[in-house]
Amino acid sequence: MNLPPPTVQWLDDSGTAFRAPGADASRPGVLDIIDQTRLPQSLHRLHLSDQKEIHAAISRLCVRGAPAIGCAAALGLAACAQRLTTTDQAEFRRQLEHTAAFLNSSRPTAVNLSWALQRCLNCLTADHVPALKQQLLDEALAILAEDISLCEAIGKHGLQLLQPGQGVLTHCNAGALATGGCGTALAPLYAAHQAGYRLKVFSNETRPLLQGSRLTAWELSRAGIEVTTICDSMAAQVMREGLVSLVLVGADRVAANGDTANKISTYQLAISANYHRIPFYVAMPYSTIDRSLHSGQEIPIEQRSPDEISHCQGAKVYNPAFDVTPYELISGYITERGICRKP
Amino acid sequence: MNLPPPTVQWLDDSGTAFRAPGADASRPGVLDIIDQTRLPQSLHRLHLSDQKEIHAAISRLCVRGAPAIGCAAALGLAACAQRLTTTDQAEFRRQLEHTAAFLNSSRPTAVNLSWALQRCLNCLTADHVPALKQQLLDEALAILAEDISLCEAIGKHGLQLLQPGQGVLTHCNAGALATGGCGTALAPLYAAHQAGYRLKVFSNETRPLLQGSRLTAWELSRAGIEVTTICDSMAAQVMREGLVSLVLVGADRVAANGDTANKISTYQLAISANYHRIPFYVAMPYSTIDRSLHSGQEIPIEQRSPDEISHCQGAKVYNPAFDVTPYELISGYITERGICRKP
Repeated sequence: MNLPPPTVQWLDDSGTAFRAPGADASRPGVLDIIDQTRLPQSLHRLHLSDQKEIHAAISRLCVRGAPAIGCAAALGLAACAQRLTTTDQAEFRRQLEHTAAFLNSSRPTAVNLSWALQRCLNCLTADHVPALKQQLLDEALAILAEDISLCEAIGKHGLQLLQPGQGVLTHCNAGALATGGCGTALAPLYAAHQAGYRLKVFSNETRPLLQGSRLTAWELSRAGIEVTTICDSMAAQVMREGLVSLVLVGADRVAANGDTANKISTYQLAISANYHRIPFYVAMPYSTIDRSLHSGQEIPIEQRSPDEISHCQGAKVYNPAFDVTPYELISGYITERGICRKP
Repeated sequence: MNLPPPTVQWLDDSGTAFRAPGADASRPGVLDIIDQTRLPQSLHRLHLSDQKEIHAAISRLCVRGAPAIGCAAALGLAACAQRLTTTDQAEFRRQLEHTAAFLNSSRPTAVNLSWALQRCLNCLTADHVPALKQQLLDEALAILAEDISLCEAIGKHGLQLLQPGQGVLTHCNAGALATGGCGTALAPLYAAHQAGYRLKVFSNETRPLLQGSRLTAWELSRAGIEVTTICDSMAAQVMREGLVSLVLVGADRVAANGDTANKISTYQLAISANYHRIPFYVAMPYSTIDRSLHSGQEIPIEQRSPDEISHCQGAKVYNPAFDVTPYELISGYITERGICRKP
């Protein structure tokens, strides 16, 4: 299998790539990411060590998907820290916190971003600057390694739901490009592919920003998995024709009652799956469950720019970026801890 | 109200436009249509009297929508007939049939096209060429006038379903641009607007060819009706937010049991409306009912070019142009004869 190339990694000046602790912080290194704005036309990587460049890469969606953003921010902070010249511990910490605050402002609503940066700051226990730099790099690579393991665990658990030859429908991109590892919703598909299943995957194009046709179709077909792109509005027709028997999507936030916020159209997809009695599963890290929210009604829906929906003149545009799928339409949740089905 | 400009009309050499019988066939005239491929950027009209140009205008979708195609083909045939120089009646009929057969090949699957051309050929009872030319023009203008009346009747009947201030969702373009008159699904909206209702219309963009954002949003906003474009996948979210209380769509073909073929996504929309208990009505000429088909399963689904769905590399594309909505998801049918609700 032609596994997807790493979305996020550490690259040192000898050209060695790291996705787990083990890199030497005394060797200059960079945050190395795929520039997703250039997919699927070209596979171009960015090597970043300047805080302004890293901020821009996150805000311009060169790296997107909550787990991938968290990993990139942590490694980006480690790269910036390497370049701080002060030997005074207090001054180092002051400058580091300043950089972390700046990086944190690149995508204000991404929970993983602030979580990863805070975790890096919290790990600092050493008493001299070189050791602090090593601690930061180790922690950032630990975050990446944990994300890789988490994706693998989701894949292993989700594999239980799949059968060889099965048709599976997914929406948006909850794949390798959205994580440090092999994805959340797509992780079971990679696991199935490695197990020799020959799945037939349908990928919604995902209007308005086309993450499905640009990213999901690219990474799955590159791995040798059969994938067919459809317009979001064709999902019900594909279900009616019996071409899919499982829907797998990711999640941005899951409320305590199971209501799930995800990319716009997920709700409509769940309604169609329910009508056709097709199982509808959500795959996500366990940490995506936000127990402070009783239900999805408490999750605010982000409105994005009308410019994302083109070809309109004279008419207004309504462009919610997410919707909330009520728990009663969801068959179960796949996390690194296993599969949780509804009672 | 700024009514939509005529999609199809007859224009004689004095600059007088006709949409009902009354034109003098001895004055040279042309088929006058809006070039819909240039909407919404510019409102450009085409004046056509050459059979190759008329064929190209229909096949290139300069004019689209089954009723509008029928009207354009009939007036186009009359314009071509005017330019035939033979005075021999038999030769005239032979050349005319040849032209009709050629025009009929411009959109092989459009039922109204062959119906309108055949009706024009069948009307020929006169015994000399000038009179035959006048009969042709009268019949073509009669077809257009009947279509205008039919749209008005659909609008009048459909108005009963509407309330001032109501939110209404529509899909694709079943409006003035698709007919000789003020549309089928959009006719009740124009009638309501004239009655002073201030509707809030939501228009699905209608992937992949964007007839909703390009055409429906253009014609409704031009008439002063509030219209908001959404991605097709946002319809369920708009329903959940309580923004619409009625769905109105057109139809390409209705089977004897009520199953309805229409632009892809109509089925998914009907499922979402059903889940939210929102009435879902189909508006169409009574002649759209095809009693030779027992159910929608007998309606073939046209597959269109993968090129219509862009941004895909490496992946296959599935692109059905239509889907079939089962009758149990449809609240009723609005035709020129009235509203037919399900038993």
